[in-house]
Amino acid sequence: MLTLASDFGSPYPAAMKGVICSRTDARLVDIAHDLPRQDPRAAAFWLRETIPWFPPAVHLAVVDPGVGTDRRAIATRVGNHAVVAPDNGLARPVVRRLRETAAAADSTATEPPIEAFEISIEDPASTTFHGRDVFAPAAGDIHAVGVDAMADIDSLSRIALDACVDIEFPTPTVDDGTICGEVLVVDDFGNVITNIPGDKLGDIDTVGVNDASVPVVETFDHVGRGETLVTVGSHGYVECDVNQGRGDDAFGLAAGDVVRVSLGR
Amino acid sequence: MLTLASDFGSPYPAAMKGVICSRTDARLVDIAHDLPRQDPRAAAFWLRETIPWFPPAVHLAVVDPGVGTDRRAIATRVGNHAVVAPDNGLARPVVRRLRETAAAADSTATEPPIEAFEISIEDPASTTFHGRDVFAPAAGDIHAVGVDAMADIDSLSRIALDACVDIEFPTPTVDDGTICGEVLVVDDFGNVITNIPGDKLGDIDTVGVNDASVPVVETFDHVGRGETLVTVGSHGYVECDVNQGRGDDAFGLAAGDVVRVSLGR
Amino acid sequence: MLTLASDFGSPYPAAMKGVICSRTDARLVDIAHDLPRQDPRAAAFWLRETIPWFPPAVHLAVVDPGVGTDRRAIATRVGNHAVVAPDNGLARPVVRRLRETAAAADSTATEPPIEAFEISIEDPASTTFHGRDVFAPAAGDIHAVGVDAMADIDSLSRIALDACVDIEFPTPTVDDGTICGEVLVVDDFGNVITNIPGDKLGDIDTVGVNDASVPVVETFDHVGRGETLVTVGSHGYVECDVNQGRGDDAFGLAAGDVVRVSLGR
Repeated sequence: MLTLASDFGSPYPAAMKGVICSRTDARLVDIAHDLPRQDPRAAAFWLRETIPWFPPAVHLAVVDPGVGTDRRAIATRVGNHAVVAPDNGLARPVVRRLRETAAAADSTATEPPIEAFEISIEDPASTTFHGRDVFAPAAGDIHAVGVDAMADIDSLSRIALDACVDIEFPTPTVDDGTICGEVLVVDDFGNVITNIPGDKLGDIDTVGVNDASVPVVETFDHVGRGETLVTVGSHGYVECDVNQGRGDDAFGLAAGDVVRVSLGR
Repeated sequence: MLTLASDFGSPYPAAMKGVICSRTDARLVDIAHDLPRQDPRAAAFWLRETIPWFPPAVHLAVVDPGVGTDRRAIATRVGNHAVVAPDNGLARPVVRRLRETAAAADSTATEPPIEAFEISIEDPASTTFHGRDVFAPAAGDIHAVGVDAMADIDSLSRIALDACVDIEFPTPTVDDGTICGEVLVVDDFGNVITNIPGDKLGDIDTVGVNDASVPVVETFDHVGRGETLVTVGSHGYVECDVNQGRGDDAFGLAAGDVVRVSLGR
Repeated sequence: MLTLASDFGSPYPAAMKGVICSRTDARLVDIAHDLPRQDPRAAAFWLRETIPWFPPAVHLAVVDPGVGTDRRAIATRVGNHAVVAPDNGLARPVVRRLRETAAAADSTATEPPIEAFEISIEDPASTTFHGRDVFAPAAGDIHAVGVDAMADIDSLSRIALDACVDIEFPTPTVDDGTICGEVLVVDDFGNVITNIPGDKLGDIDTVGVNDASVPVVETFDHVGRGETLVTVGSHGYVECDVNQGRGDDAFGLAAGDVVRVSLGR
């Protein structure tokens, strides 16, 4: 299995699929091709929240504002998963999560190592579409030989993981009953996903979100249609949402914004 | 084969695919993930118009404004098709159509029964993403054991079909040469699809649509570019369209609107 | 393998997939279903730039403003590729490219012939959705018997390729250091793709684009974020782009517009 994710929209992903299908007969599954454009940090969030649900596979991920510059192309391995991506931090949160998931699934095992490889970029057909000319060939080749044999591929050179760019999501701070967090992403429904772990809410009924008092509920339909709510979303984080509406509009919040959640209301 | 349909946009369908691929090696085919959002009635129309073209398969369909409330999750079976969905009426029109199609294909057979099962919802990982945590696991499990053995799955309990929520589309009324119908949906092209069966038009050349006189033609390009037309669309219903343009804009019609078609023009 | 491309948006492609899956067990790969709507010329560009990356396959392509009129439905063959499409020129640029690619891959071979067939359109279920009722059945049947045996299919009749509608992209003219080209398409990123071959730029550092002086660079990130640039894009043509922004907005250019590139700046 080979999954594909990018910010390419359409129809560029098709060229990547053609290149891959010319090298291996992998089953292809699209993660998304409308990842937040040119935004490796937000894209890294979505990769971390989707890819670990898959069985072992090669995962191709391209959100690459630095395409054609001297940024590296890398492939990382955790167990039988491989992630092929530009070296801009995109892959590291999902790779960490894959390692945690593997360790949790086999509690007797130590966490599997994360191996990193640089993909050589030799005279690609373009300087602006490495998805097609660098990453797709590498992903196809890794699938063809198998993730457990990827170290044998000539175009891959082992490097230290620490040499690769990392992205870490901010953690919220707490001061006198007020949690100061950040909006990580807004999803397609307009749900505002913060970095505040859901367990911080305890069993409180109402919270303050910036200047508003908002009910804390288990799911959307526990408030009226069009009304605001706070809930612990499917990612485990506090979300500021609207039942059958857009939380981003109602709360005036966008990715990167500060959000203050007061428990004392 | 396992088809997927939802109003999730992107990238949430990927998490469902991961869950499914962890349970079965089904071929995955997307129906659509931009079904009319939070609108089980319009989504039910599109499921009915697309799924019956497929060979026997497990069909996962999630448009679920009541997620996390006490609405049931259900799986229904007709012949070798299974439809997994929230119990909000979404599945019933397509299941009826699948039964009609099966009966028409084998005229010696009686219509196959429709079986219904409740899917147990035990402590899902989230209250807001049952697509990932309830419906995808059920669909994967049904595919893994086979539709003909789905009754044996522990998490499924047989229930009466009549206990499940139904959606029925309205039928038009006729009064003195005027058909009073309703817009069922507007498609991606802006074509206005009514609930008026195409054979109501007979071989008339022109009809009145609300206040306008409009030619009845066999296909779009039989009027000039940008001009309005009435035709019998691919669903068998009267449509109000524009050649290479948007019928919804030209006619001022949206889903749910009343449309009066006068044959006496 | 069977690829699908259309301007149908959603969910109409699902009906085509159902029809295909009822006739053959082909792996399905989507090229795109948001090809430029009702625009066979722009769609033909994208088919030419994506399909040749695939291994031999049946390619279904439907952008069909003339659906239901007397325009023909055709299937063309080059080597082990078949392209099924309306006879409006959509298929011919990609078929030419497939022939060139085949010849380049095997330099000892002569160019393979292009064979053309008319698909009989006998009483289809609709006059407005030949994607489902004419093209998908034909593509499924061709895949089922194999491209090398497609001439044996009863519903296909051999015709002369020259009898089929063609689309040719314009070539730029050069006058006294100024190249007068045309915008072929604008991609999803807003990159303005012209018909000017990249080698026309030579090793120049700056060009004039209409009235503006613009740096010529190897890739986006070689100018500041939000700044304009000219580069040779992944299709081999001169593009007018913006680093992490939209070239079409910055340059005021749209598909079909004339673009004057002056080398003497």
